Amino acid sequence: MIKAYAAFEPRGLLQPFEYDPGELKPHEVEIDVHYCGICHSDLNVIDSDWGRTSYPVVAGHEVVGKIGRIGTKVRHLSIGQVVGLGWHAGYCNECSFCLAGDHNLCSSSQATIIGHHGGFADKVRAASNSVVPIPDGIELESAGPLFCGGITVFNPLVQFGIKPTDKVAVIGIGGLGHMAVNFLDAWGCEVTAFTSSESKKNEALSLGARHVLDSRNPDELKAAAGRFDFIISTVNVKLDWNLYLGTLSPRGRLHFVGATLEPLDISVFSLIGGQRSVSGSPVGSPATISRMLDFANRHRIRPQIEKFSFADINQAIARVRSGQARYRVVLCR
Amino acid sequence: MIKAYAAFEPRGLLQPFEYDPGELKPHEVEIDVHYCGICHSDLNVIDSDWGRTSYPVVAGHEVVGKIGRIGTKVRHLSIGQVVGLGWHAGYCNECSFCLAGDHNLCSSSQATIIGHHGGFADKVRAASNSVVPIPDGIELESAGPLFCGGITVFNPLVQFGIKPTDKVAVIGIGGLGHMAVNFLDAWGCEVTAFTSSESKKNEALSLGARHVLDSRNPDELKAAAGRFDFIISTVNVKLDWNLYLGTLSPRGRLHFVGATLEPLDISVFSLIGGQRSVSGSPVGSPATISRMLDFANRHRIRPQIEKFSFADINQAIARVRSGQARYRVVLCR
Repeated sequence: MIKAYAAFEPRGLLQPFEYDPGELKPHEVEIDVHYCGICHSDLNVIDSDWGRTSYPVVAGHEVVGKIGRIGTKVRHLSIGQVVGLGWHAGYCNECSFCLAGDHNLCSSSQATIIGHHGGFADKVRAASNSVVPIPDGIELESAGPLFCGGITVFNPLVQFGIKPTDKVAVIGIGGLGHMAVNFLDAWGCEVTAFTSSESKKNEALSLGARHVLDSRNPDELKAAAGRFDFIISTVNVKLDWNLYLGTLSPRGRLHFVGATLEPLDISVFSLIGGQRSVSGSPVGSPATISRMLDFANRHRIRPQIEKFSFADINQAIARVRSGQARYRVVLCR
Repeated sequence: MIKAYAAFEPRGLLQPFEYDPGELKPHEVEIDVHYCGICHSDLNVIDSDWGRTSYPVVAGHEVVGKIGRIGTKVRHLSIGQVVGLGWHAGYCNECSFCLAGDHNLCSSSQATIIGHHGGFADKVRAASNSVVPIPDGIELESAGPLFCGGITVFNPLVQFGIKPTDKVAVIGIGGLGHMAVNFLDAWGCEVTAFTSSESKKNEALSLGARHVLDSRNPDELKAAAGRFDFIISTVNVKLDWNLYLGTLSPRGRLHFVGATLEPLDISVFSLIGGQRSVSGSPVGSPATISRMLDFANRHRIRPQIEKFSFADINQAIARVRSGQARYRVVLCR
């Protein structure tokens, strides 16, 4: 039996919940969970914001732990190995995207916390190729958030060939944004942070931003016209996106990883004149997660975390709901 | 003196107009105009739709002719050489985009028909490096539309690395769209045409489309879910863009060259799930125009044109205004 914490209704408090995961399949592994980050999308699933949650639901998809058991066909992982698990706990391994190494674009992928029990538990199961070994040197307590928030902001740098000579900007300094600043600074770029929080301005500078602009001040945006090759938006609120497009250099890209609910109402003229692009992307493939871990290790990039014990999981979730966490909340044994 | 046809007020009939172009500058050439296409953006400028027109205005930016005179510093063009001139009649040659060969993204470029007199005339002047020689084999009467409409739909194939293995779609079969189908078919792609015109369905197939779908039928769009790697929109009307994003494969791109006036109201979720992009672009650089002419020549791609004499310029413009031309209107001596 796996001892987990489950929600039994939208916005419900998490309660102890045991379930029998059945026989371990040949290509599965079972991870003994040591740490699990809490991501905003855990709350979306607990609250059934996306309308797909069946209860009881065990969330948690920023898992760090040790391999406890391996299926009979698993060759590349071994008992006791330190690994992480993120948004995906399995892939079809047959579609053109899986075959090309873009497993995160597989339309038959298995989300770790939708139709599958996640990492708010003592153990979690996953397909062996969705689990990524963590290199020596990364502190395990802060590794969890790399597996969802971290890869979400790292993956676009790989996908779109961001260059160290690029001038880039990060909209929103929070769970995703603070890691984006770290990664882009280490990538060699000149980083500008956009935040409307006065208190985060100095933090953004200490994270590696060279400049900080007020994300809601049209004058500061207009003064930055044509400046950026790449902007990554990590916020989920509506901003004046055409003004942000104006801060892009010709050929620039405004990339969304934050799930802004309102339509983008983009002017075609903002795109045509300077050959600009708008895009989005979801997490990253196992191969890219592995490259990210190596990069984070070499550059000593660590998510800033607040720690809670698993026993205090409801306080931890309340902390994430408050929007006050700086910047990621991690459950620890 | 240059003998031209000018508009003297928005939507005004064109009237004979002579002007003195002054001394030929060292890096300029003067083209004897043999043919000039009429593009919808000529009407936008004549009508001051973009609010930047000063009258009298001489439009015309799909020029084909022979070099009549060259400035003292021009080395790469010679008297009598057959050339074309498109949207741009000069560049700053100093900015990072000019230096990188992306002259069409130069923010100090000189538009041929804004603040400069264009090709509805017996002669037109332009900077020597904005003028592109036309290779032997291209019929001159149909070459003009390649210099604006043609390069506008060809340039994105180069910019975004469209592959012959890609499945692509063209929205709108008109002045731009019919050339887009030609180019993409010759590029080796499987082409689908979107049109709401029953009469254009067979024409789209004869142009090289493999499939034709109704651009306004949600059922046909839903049935094409996930199909296309690249879609180019040549229309200037509002369609259900999120439905079109749904027809893109993961990593797909919806690219706008048609100046749709209404905001795109794109859902961020349409972008994030499949790492999709939305973009736009303006015409192309002289280097890309030259590559396009070679490609069009080898593949025998010719715009479909309706011919009018320069003396009938007002009838020709009325024909473009009617939206009935199949597909480009060209003025001939």
